[in-house]
Order: sequence, then C-alpha cells, then structure tokens
Amino acid sequence: MDNLALCDANNFPLTPITFLKRAAECYPNRTSIIYGQTRFTWPQIYDRCCRLTASLLSLNIRKNDVVSVLAPNIPAMYEMHFAVPMAGAVLNPLNTRLDAKSITTILRHAQPKIFCIDRSFETLSREILHLLSFDDSKLNMLVIFIDETDFPKTISSNEPNYESLIRRGEPTSSMVAHMFRVQNEHDPISLNYTSGTTADPKGVVISHRGAYLSSLGAIMGWEMGTCPVYLWTLPMFHCNGWTLTWSVAARGGTNVCIRHVTASEIFKNIQMHGVTHMCCVPTVFNILLQGKPLDLSNRSGPVEMLTGKVQRLGFHVIHAYGLTEATGPALFCEWQDEWNRLPENQQLKLKARQGVGILTLAETDVKNTQTQESVPRDGKTMGEIFIKGSSVMKGYLKNPKATLEAFKYGWLNTGDIGVIHPDGHIEIKDRSKDIIISGGENISSVEVENVLYKHHKVKEAAVVAMPHPVWGETPCAFVVLEKGETNQGVREDSLVTSERDLIEYCRENMPRYMCPRKVVFLEELPKNGNGKFLKPVLRNIANGLVVSDENTVSSKIVQQRKEKRRVNSLTSRL
Amino acid sequence: MDNLALCDANNFPLTPITFLKRAAECYPNRTSIIYGQTRFTWPQIYDRCCRLTASLLSLNIRKNDVVSVLAPNIPAMYEMHFAVPMAGAVLNPLNTRLDAKSITTILRHAQPKIFCIDRSFETLSREILHLLSFDDSKLNMLVIFIDETDFPKTISSNEPNYESLIRRGEPTSSMVAHMFRVQNEHDPISLNYTSGTTADPKGVVISHRGAYLSSLGAIMGWEMGTCPVYLWTLPMFHCNGWTLTWSVAARGGTNVCIRHVTASEIFKNIQMHGVTHMCCVPTVFNILLQGKPLDLSNRSGPVEMLTGKVQRLGFHVIHAYGLTEATGPALFCEWQDEWNRLPENQQLKLKARQGVGILTLAETDVKNTQTQESVPRDGKTMGEIFIKGSSVMKGYLKNPKATLEAFKYGWLNTGDIGVIHPDGHIEIKDRSKDIIISGGENISSVEVENVLYKHHKVKEAAVVAMPHPVWGETPCAFVVLEKGETNQGVREDSLVTSERDLIEYCRENMPRYMCPRKVVFLEELPKNGNGKFLKPVLRNIANGLVVSDENTVSSKIVQQRKEKRRVNSLTSRL
Repeated sequence: MDNLALCDANNFPLTPITFLKRAAECYPNRTSIIYGQTRFTWPQIYDRCCRLTASLLSLNIRKNDVVSVLAPNIPAMYEMHFAVPMAGAVLNPLNTRLDAKSITTILRHAQPKIFCIDRSFETLSREILHLLSFDDSKLNMLVIFIDETDFPKTISSNEPNYESLIRRGEPTSSMVAHMFRVQNEHDPISLNYTSGTTADPKGVVISHRGAYLSSLGAIMGWEMGTCPVYLWTLPMFHCNGWTLTWSVAARGGTNVCIRHVTASEIFKNIQMHGVTHMCCVPTVFNILLQGKPLDLSNRSGPVEMLTGKVQRLGFHVIHAYGLTEATGPALFCEWQDEWNRLPENQQLKLKARQGVGILTLAETDVKNTQTQESVPRDGKTMGEIFIKGSSVMKGYLKNPKATLEAFKYGWLNTGDIGVIHPDGHIEIKDRSKDIIISGGENISSVEVENVLYKHHKVKEAAVVAMPHPVWGETPCAFVVLEKGETNQGVREDSLVTSERDLIEYCRENMPRYMCPRKVVFLEELPKNGNGKFLKPVLRNIANGLVVSDENTVSSKIVQQRKEKRRVNSLTSRL
Repeated sequence: MDNLALCDANNFPLTPITFLKRAAECYPNRTSIIYGQTRFTWPQIYDRCCRLTASLLSLNIRKNDVVSVLAPNIPAMYEMHFAVPMAGAVLNPLNTRLDAKSITTILRHAQPKIFCIDRSFETLSREILHLLSFDDSKLNMLVIFIDETDFPKTISSNEPNYESLIRRGEPTSSMVAHMFRVQNEHDPISLNYTSGTTADPKGVVISHRGAYLSSLGAIMGWEMGTCPVYLWTLPMFHCNGWTLTWSVAARGGTNVCIRHVTASEIFKNIQMHGVTHMCCVPTVFNILLQGKPLDLSNRSGPVEMLTGKVQRLGFHVIHAYGLTEATGPALFCEWQDEWNRLPENQQLKLKARQGVGILTLAETDVKNTQTQESVPRDGKTMGEIFIKGSSVMKGYLKNPKATLEAFKYGWLNTGDIGVIHPDGHIEIKDRSKDIIISGGENISSVEVENVLYKHHKVKEAAVVAMPHPVWGETPCAFVVLEKGETNQGVREDSLVTSERDLIEYCRENMPRYMCPRKVVFLEELPKNGNGKFLKPVLRNIANGLVVSDENTVSSKIVQQRKEKRRVNSLTSRL
C-alpha cells in the first residue's frame, strides 16, 4: 500500500494560479474582465498574464522576490494576482489609503524588487520615493507605472510601463509549462500588511496552498455558482480581495472592475452587466443606502440593522468574517432552513452572527484564554476564536516574535472574542484587547457600542476602558452625533445633557455594570488606514479621564482631534 | 520568506474525515441520516464513528490495514467511510452485485483484516468464506455481520456484530484528537476495485488528499449548497458514492439511505424528506421513467434522450463523467447562460456532453494517442482524455505494470476517447479500445450505438470490431430488440429481415463506412458486475464471424448466452 509512488499525474502542487489556465481552457468565450469600455476574455487575460510573467522573468525576478503594487481595482491589479506568482514571486498589494510614510515603512520591510504604481498615485509615489531616497536600507527597486490601456499615453517613453511589459513579454511553451507548476505548494504567493501605521509592520505571508484552499472555501461558503458576475467594490489590496481574485477565475466568472466605489458606479454596473455577487463592508452598505456618490463616511453600525435595510433594496446578504492571517474568509453565516419560519427581525439577528468555520479550515473553536478549554456552546460564555488549517498564514515576515504569539497553543489566535451558540454558529463579541473588565465582570465594548448605535442621535460610537477607583475599569464611550443633531446650535450645556441622556438611555437598555460612566463627544472618531477606529488612541485619552458627574472634554481630546487622520475607508473585518 | 516554519496551526493534512467533526460542530441539530424509521443527527453519527474507530483500534487495526465491506446503502456503510480511515485503516467497499468467486478473488488480493457483511448477504458470504477455506493465501480475517439497528436481533450473541462494536467502543479524548489528524495526507483512505471478473483485479488506491479534493470538486461542480438532502440511489461501493459520502458531510446535509433502488422507494423518499440531490446512472433514469418498482433492466440509451424525459418529470439534470482512477468525478457539464436561448433539443445535446474538468483537477486535456499532442478544439478531432491532479489515484494495489501503464506520459490515461468543442467542453466518443479502425478511418462504436438506439425497435446495442478482408476491421452490432418486438412470434427469417432493416436504417443515418456490416440479435447482452457490456466477450464472438449477406447466429453466441451473468446494475461511467 505504501510503495505507490507519487508522480506528475497524481501529485500536482495546489495553487490558485492554475484556475487561470483552466478558465482559459474551460470558459474560452466568457468575459473575464469588464472595465469601462475595456473587455477581456479569459484566453486574453491568460495570454496577458503569461506575457507579463515572461517580462518579469526577463527582469530577473526570481523565486520569493517581492513585487509591490499600489493600485485600485483595475485590470492590472487583477492580472498581477496571477502573473507575479506565475513568475515564482510574491505579490505585495498595498493599501491605497495609507500615507507616504506608512507605505515607506512597509516597502523598507518588504524589500520589493519591483514597485508597480497606478498613475493616479503618481504624487503619492513621488513622495514615497523621496522618503526612500533618504534611506540607508539600500532598497533597489524598479518602479513601473500602470497607465490605463484605453487612455492616451501621456508618459515619456523611456519610463518602464506596465503595458510595455505585457507587449514585450515572450513566453515560450516550456516557460509556460513551468508557470503553473509551482515548486512547492507551501511557497509564498502573497505578502499582505495588516497595518502600516505602526513602527512594527506585520506582513502576513500566505502560501499557494493556503490561497488555493481559501479561494475554494469562499466559493462554497458563499455558494458561488458557475460563471458569476462579480463587482469589485472590495479593494483587491485587502487580503487579495478576500481571495476572491482567484475564486472568480476558478468559477470562470466576470470581474467588473471599478476605479471608484460610489453609489452611481455600483448601481450603473449592476444594471449594465447583471452583477450577481459583490462584497460589502458596512461602509459600502451605507453607500448603497445613501445613494450619494462620493460620500464615503464610515459608519460601522450594527450589522443586522444595515443588513435589513440593504435587503429591502433587493440584495441577498450573507455575513462573513475573516482576517488576513486566515488568508481571508474564516467564518460564513450559512443559512439554516429553519430560519425561514422566523420573523424578519429574528432572521436579521441570526444573519448578523459570523457563522461557522469555512469548509477548508480544519478546525474552528472558541476557547477560554486562561484555561485553553473550549467554552460551552451556550451563546453566552465568551472566549477567543481559534482556528487551524492549511489556509492559515505561514507567519509574519521577519517577525518571529509576533508569529510565535499568533500561533500560541498550536492554533491561530485570532484575538477576537466570541461565543458559540447552541446551533454551532459563532458570534463575535469583541477584540480580546477591547474587553473591559469591571469588578471582575467581562464587558464587551462591542455590545455597549451596539446599544449606543440604536440611539437615533448616535452616528458613531467607540467604547474603551477607563480607570475606575472601585471597579478597576469602567466603560467610556466616544460618540459622534448625527449631523442634524450637532449642527443645530449645540451648546456646551446641551452636550452635557446629551451625555446624561445617553447614560440614562444605556441604563434602560443594558445591565448597570455595562453602562458607560463617561461619554465623550467628538466630531469624528480617529481611524486607521483601514477605517478601523484607533482604539489605542481612545484608550490613551480615557486613561487621562476621571469619573465625575460633570463632563469636560479634556485638552488631550482637542489635541487628538487635530491629529486624527482624515482617511475614510472600509473596515478590515469582513 | 523561506524561514517560516509550518506548524500545527497552519499545516493540517487534508482529509475528508474532518468533515464529520465539522458537521457535528457546525450542524448539531441537522439530521445526518434518514433510513426507514431510523434518524441520526450529525453529533450522533460523530459519536458512533468515534466509538467504532475505538473498537477497530482495540481489535488491533493499524495504519494501512484493509477493512472490506459488503453492504447496500445503509447507515453502517456510510459510517464506515469515516470510522475506518479514522482508525488509519483503508476502506474496501465491495460491489454487492459480484458473485462469490469474484469477491473471493478481490479478498485474496486485498488481504483485509476485517470483513463486514450486511446480514442480507449472509448466503453469499458463506459461499465466499467456503471458497476461501480451500485457500492457501492464509487470509486471516475477522468477519463482522451488520444487522439492522431497528430490527430485532436474530443472531447468536457470540458472533461479532457491527452494533456491538459501536456499543463497546470507548474513545478517549486523546484518541479522538488523533482520529482526525492523519499522519500524511497522501496515505490511502480507500481501495476500490474496478473489476472483479478477471483474474487480474485492479484495486484503485485513493488517498486522503485525493478524496478531500474530489469531494470538494463534486460540491462545486454540482453547485451543491449548504444542507442538501441527498438520496442514496447510487451505490456507496461505487467509488465511495463518487466521493459524495464525504461531500454530504462537508455540506452538513442529510443522507437518505435506501436498501433497494426502486421507483416507489425513490418517489416516496423524495416526497417525504424533500430530497434535493441524487445521482443517477441511466439505469436509474429508466427506473424513474418506467415507475415500475423492481424493474432494474439495464438500458444505456443516448443520454440526451433520457435527460429530456427525466427533466419533463421535474428533475434538473447535470451530466458528469468520472472514473474510479480519478477518485470519482472528473468532468462536469457546467451550464452556460447562453444555452438558455437555444431550443430544448439543442440544450439537451449540449447537456449530454461530459463537460469541463472539475475545479480540483490540475489539468484536463484530449491528446492524440500517437503524438501526445493536444487535439484542436474543433469538436471533431478525437483523442484520449488525459487528466492530472492531486485527486488522481495513487495507483493500483500490487500491480506496478498497470499503474505504470495508467500513468504513461505523466498523466492519468483514462482510456476514453473524446473531442474538445470550441467552447471548451469535452465530449466522449468511445473507449480507446472500442475504436474501430476501418480502412484507416476511426469509427466510434458509441456513435454507431447512438444511431441504433434511435431506432424504435432497438432496446440495447453494443458495437465492436469484426475482421474484414478488405478494410481490416468493420463494425459488428449486437442488438437486443424491444420486448414487444421479439415476443410477437419472431421467426428466423424475420430476424434476417430485421438485420437488413437495421443495416439499411444505419446507411440512411450515418456515413457508409461507419455502418455495421453484421447485426447479431441476442435476448440479452452480456454485462459485468457493474452493468457494463462485456465488449471483450462480444469482440471474441465477432472475431469468429465472417461478413456475409446471410446472418447465422454462431454456436459461440448460444454458448455465450448460457454463460452470461444475470446481473442488472448501474453502469460505472458517471
């Protein structure tokens, strides 16, 4: 039984780049990419990718070399998800909402051999290159600009250019044969930074095997049938578009690429191309609901409220959860037929839970962080969400300490705190570091925020711990009121009234120990490049506050308001 | 990049047995098995499997030991697909339609440590054990009978029994932790014999990795959503139910098990349990169409005709193709939206093609068997279907010659002859050994058969080569006429007339060179245990025939008719 040897026929390394070859062969007449007036079939994208790969090889790109890219959801960004790993190299998609300093930090860390930049980021990239020029990291990278294929060329001809690489690529058949057979399925395919705002960037290395499994897991979790028409509202830089870059090829689907995520662009493309699938973070839900082009104000309200509203527009919503370290999707809220009999509000509540582990994860569990024991499946007892499986990241690049920390106890420690309901569905309650421990009771800041969001005057709310002389910690809420509320001649005393109102409202809607003892009003909450609230900043502020009946916005907050970054973006939790 | 080590968290061997654990955790309230009055939930099946595994381990079952099973589609058969590999052992499901001699040949070859037998096969098994007792192969196996859980026990208590193994199994938590983490994903999970009728049995060894990938490929090819209700019309012994044993667990579905595949059983269960999916070979189509319980007469008519009829009953039909060596499914006829605009007969024609390679195969191609070059995608040029990928079998047990032959040129040589259409879909024309070469022209016996089947008097038709003094080979047709036709006082001369009629009919409906020059009428065609026509037998007969205008059924045929096995069964091509 054991003397049966593996051979070429029965042991092919798992990699999502084979999906491109299959799509070209199995769906030769299907449109692979729609982008404005541009149309490509699958054989055309296959051909373009093979040419680009040949060019990359001719530029001396070798195994494990990093190729960084700064671009919106344009065809080039999609193609690079195949062509870069087809050359054996590692794709490093950069968050386009980061500032020059953050991107410079990432580039110094990732040490790319090539940096591809969409022409729309020319100014930003000049700033990045300027910052790098003061550098002693000896980063010797080739810069390649991406110009629109259907736009007149405005660039000087001696500057390396994406389309010229494709034009001059000459893949031989033996070269092509090697492009789709990676040496080892555990080799890296992509390097995705989860944060560029700190001095300690965490570059998540994901493998061909992990990307392959996650792409299939997403297809099955989402029940994505053959030949979907997928609208790219989710940035591809965001964990490879939650691996859907590869899933769409696997399904022979059509990628509808858009440069700007606005309501008019979304609705226009849905109508023109018969879009069947799109990924939405709450921000995109708000765009859909408000129908206001260019209004990208971030609002992460409770998911069930948004879901209900979006469903009434005619969308069928499936909730998912993931993280870059899990190579994208980790949980999908799979519908249960029994739910059909429930009233809508209950359905929405069930739909807003994160759900069950995707099929391609080996194990998913919620464990007590102290004892490492599985929590009871009672929907109440909180623990940290742990996962394991071959789709989990290889680790953090050049950061063994963080890698070791993430893989403590033989699982990926997600850092997310949740419960398991008796029906097996996991619901996230909080990030582990966002749990507030008050008098020995665990308080989920997310639960308090969810109650605050239900108040009609609250637009944004973030709750963190503040010190309390008796209870150790107590919740402190940072709140942005709805525009209509704050613009109508709000005075200092009315704010104070509002704080009392809100605390009173909380007391009516949650256990007393969970109620915020302080509410701080801001015009906007500080966010990172991914649109996540910067809770560490809020915690710093809260640490300087004391509990009193009178609320005075401290000078620290005013200072903070000046510093906060004006980046509106999608949140990074799926 | 390369110094990131694999660990428990991110490198979990791929195996479909993890689907059972996941189903118990993610679908705790779902019914896993319905069988008559018996109901099990997923946690119950999980518990039963863990107990059975513990018992197998206590019986000294070790890694790579073979456990054979002879049973219809009952819960025990389903459970063994998990419990046996959970013990590290290899499942060997036996074709229940084989005779004692064939099964004995397989058992001698497979050398199982345990042989589980459904009580309904007690007589057959006694015959098998009797045959083995004259044997010097020193086969020392434990025989375990499976008795119905909801039937009164009629067996003596000192005989080992399936349910008693489950009852006395005592899995410890550390034992359970090991059950789902196989040592190596390339380890064997199942041993499936493709033929037991020859002296040279071919035992296909499939791996955990291959079974995992094939199960997922089947889910995606079939677009099987979450929580299907799957009716077991396809025997589980047939390449592990085309891997759907594991797929249903992956999807948290319900297995509706039935002991006998009859029209009344099928329709009753569809109605009672809301069946969403079932697998049908043409035989089952005929059962559905005829609605006659217990009528299992094998008729492999052209697929599009059957498909059309079955669709009119309200079924949605997806055509697939596979082989045991590919660990089940290899091609799925994925629907293309453009087909919606075509008339029904054209849709059925497109639907009857075998389709595109499943997502989890790395490559699929049709190649010229001489030059090994890919055939043009013209829907005309024939070649052999080749596949490669990690779901392909490990090889044939103790048969290196056949293994080497199957893996010639670094691909699995399927032995099936087909074309690729311009839209990328593969259509099978014939088995390579069934191609008739007449005057240098390749004639597909399947094409000739398809024309014959369209004649209203033809019930079954098999075409093979017979020697021809001028053309080398020429087609010879073996035909079974519809009952109504032969029963109405058929005389020798009317048969002769019918032969002329049929040859004339062929000349009107196909190129002259393709027409059979001889038609031999039989009351039944010889078939193997899987219901496949025994073409080698027919070829032997045809070799003894000479082309003449007068047709005389040779004595060889009469002899053959006495010998032929009365086994009605499903055909083994998907």
